[in-house]
Amino acid sequence: MDALDVIMNKDKIIPYFQPIVSADTQLVIGYEVLARIELEDGVKSLGWFFKDHTIPDEYRQEVDEYVCNHALEKFLALEREAKLFINVDMNDILANDGERLIKNLKSFESKGLLLSNIVIEFTEQDFNGDFSLLKHFITYIQSLGIQLAIDDVGKVGSNLDRIALLKPNIVKVDLEFLEGDAFPQLYRDVLYSLSLLTRKIGATLMFEGVGSFNQLNYAWRNGGRYYQGFYLSRPKPTFQEVDFCKDSLKKEFHHFIHYERKKIEAQLVLTEKLGQLLKNSLKKLKSFYNYDDVVMHISKELNEVSFRIYICDHDGYQQSGNAVKGENNLWRLEEGSRYKNWSWRPYFLENIVRMNYERKGLLSDLYTDIEKDEMIRTYSFPINDQLYLFVDIPYNYLFEQDGLI
Amino acid sequence: MDALDVIMNKDKIIPYFQPIVSADTQLVIGYEVLARIELEDGVKSLGWFFKDHTIPDEYRQEVDEYVCNHALEKFLALEREAKLFINVDMNDILANDGERLIKNLKSFESKGLLLSNIVIEFTEQDFNGDFSLLKHFITYIQSLGIQLAIDDVGKVGSNLDRIALLKPNIVKVDLEFLEGDAFPQLYRDVLYSLSLLTRKIGATLMFEGVGSFNQLNYAWRNGGRYYQGFYLSRPKPTFQEVDFCKDSLKKEFHHFIHYERKKIEAQLVLTEKLGQLLKNSLKKLKSFYNYDDVVMHISKELNEVSFRIYICDHDGYQQSGNAVKGENNLWRLEEGSRYKNWSWRPYFLENIVRMNYERKGLLSDLYTDIEKDEMIRTYSFPINDQLYLFVDIPYNYLFEQDGLI
Repeated sequence: MDALDVIMNKDKIIPYFQPIVSADTQLVIGYEVLARIELEDGVKSLGWFFKDHTIPDEYRQEVDEYVCNHALEKFLALEREAKLFINVDMNDILANDGERLIKNLKSFESKGLLLSNIVIEFTEQDFNGDFSLLKHFITYIQSLGIQLAIDDVGKVGSNLDRIALLKPNIVKVDLEFLEGDAFPQLYRDVLYSLSLLTRKIGATLMFEGVGSFNQLNYAWRNGGRYYQGFYLSRPKPTFQEVDFCKDSLKKEFHHFIHYERKKIEAQLVLTEKLGQLLKNSLKKLKSFYNYDDVVMHISKELNEVSFRIYICDHDGYQQSGNAVKGENNLWRLEEGSRYKNWSWRPYFLENIVRMNYERKGLLSDLYTDIEKDEMIRTYSFPINDQLYLFVDIPYNYLFEQDGLI
Repeated sequence: MDALDVIMNKDKIIPYFQPIVSADTQLVIGYEVLARIELEDGVKSLGWFFKDHTIPDEYRQEVDEYVCNHALEKFLALEREAKLFINVDMNDILANDGERLIKNLKSFESKGLLLSNIVIEFTEQDFNGDFSLLKHFITYIQSLGIQLAIDDVGKVGSNLDRIALLKPNIVKVDLEFLEGDAFPQLYRDVLYSLSLLTRKIGATLMFEGVGSFNQLNYAWRNGGRYYQGFYLSRPKPTFQEVDFCKDSLKKEFHHFIHYERKKIEAQLVLTEKLGQLLKNSLKKLKSFYNYDDVVMHISKELNEVSFRIYICDHDGYQQSGNAVKGENNLWRLEEGSRYKNWSWRPYFLENIVRMNYERKGLLSDLYTDIEKDEMIRTYSFPINDQLYLFVDIPYNYLFEQDGLI
């Protein structure tokens, strides 16, 4: 099939609708419009047609508007509260300052369409025009009540500052390209940052391409509020029922919550266990004057759990050397880090103040130790008002326990 | 001055060195090489020369190698442990598979240079070649012990997934473009995400363009370990002393730590105060059976602190309506969110499990409420094993207190 086939068979083009489900209600909150052509040998996607820039603009725009208008008509006839997600190419849209799009949507407004139910979706990386014009247009359509979704984040490039500048209502991440169920740690780290950015700027994180139970779990764990994908429902020429997956989703969330709770509990149990261990261990010490003796003493008791132990004061200056586990589980003292200051590290000072306040230890998140270049956690413990003990826990220990990675 | 002037005056080109200081030791850990030309009317930067792609490649490469070699010679003569940061254009470098660069560095290795003291710095956004070749080359130079820094992150675009894929040793963020001392919240959010990404992938976050006390504070607060900029030292034809700013930096850190500690303490004080208030308030209630009554009862006591209060069960299903503050401080009950599930939200489940374990309330970070589109914090409190109270605190309340934003 080529572009001409599409144009010649315009009457066979129809909009399909893929439901978008919200994690909070487990109900369909909207539908993305996808262009399909119904030919004798089956229904074909027209995604390629809109992406092929060798096809004259007028053709693409003609088909685009045809699909969009049919979708809007069907949507109006639905007479049910939902959002319609419409894909646009911002290069085309801004070629006429967006007037054509706005005019078209406004013509449907007079037929009863609520602009606040329209979500305009576009791929930021595909836009090659003037960024300030884009920002201006987006601010304008948002002022009309139309929502904005940035599509394909994480697929080609997640431009953090552009996302933050455009202030979209929705950030869409595609999981489809993650083949099978393998989620590389690297991608997890990127998504974690993205999820926190959307939290900070007040955008909704949405996952599309949810194709399996594991991908749904992944989306849920990473702060995704809206989900879309074959695992939930394929695109259809009609609108899926609002509650078509409510029961199954509730069941799946129940599993997710149960599993996640177990993981978090395992972390709290380890925190408690290490706290008890250290309390007992410190009791045996006669004095804390020689900090190096303290860390070497503790290294014996924490031989299995840790590979590096040191003491900092409440401003973050390291007071001891590093007790470091070497070959044959022999611990030695390394001088290098004494008197270094660690207050600039994320969470460091916050944890010191919290420990001082709560008089108990804390377990960090999983992060990469620069020296070791592997994922670790750090357990920290208040010796007294002035001194804090840090126990670095290696990946292999965390891996062997349940729920710690 | 044009390109020809530069070529004609090659003997007047010399490398300048701008020191890079580490927050942990407060010492110079390295120097960035910057090309300068010493003309009769003063010393001029050659930054523009390397960025001007209308200048024939051979010219740029000639000057580049001239500066680089002079810098390496001076660096060898320094005979002191430090890192040399060398800027490269990866398009030029990869035009010959990087062979020329590696060969040149290796020739200095035979004169005593440690490759582990070399940091190759490049701007990812400027690279327009094959990404997999770039990744391959970077992996190769890192295997030689050379470190890699990605420059200008946050200036034009912070491509999270590319950063994560390239696995640089150092991520450089330029603060220079932030005019004056204004740090828009938006940029703070981006940097926060970036800082957590570097923590997760084990890269060192570095801030260049540090031009003021406030920018230094900003760098320190955002997880920056290395700092570079006029506020510390201008580039010089000689190497700054290792401890040239140790004393002043220690003093400045002391201020930062003091101020940050006050902020964190203010959050803990609010957490404690709200905990006490709720404990007393809940005591007055005869039963918890009507959740709506509970939230409306509490809204009276927290009238000043909150604008929205609700109750969830331990799986995150909202059990009450939302008690919402309207005009004239009158609270009303909104039905809309009852039975919605919030377990997908970042930190939600973790906080529920923690509250259940510790039997006390938690104050969230500052984040944007999607409905209100303003920065808020949420205080959460365990009523019992099954029920958790959520109190949303508006920006204006946080703003009026010290240390809460």
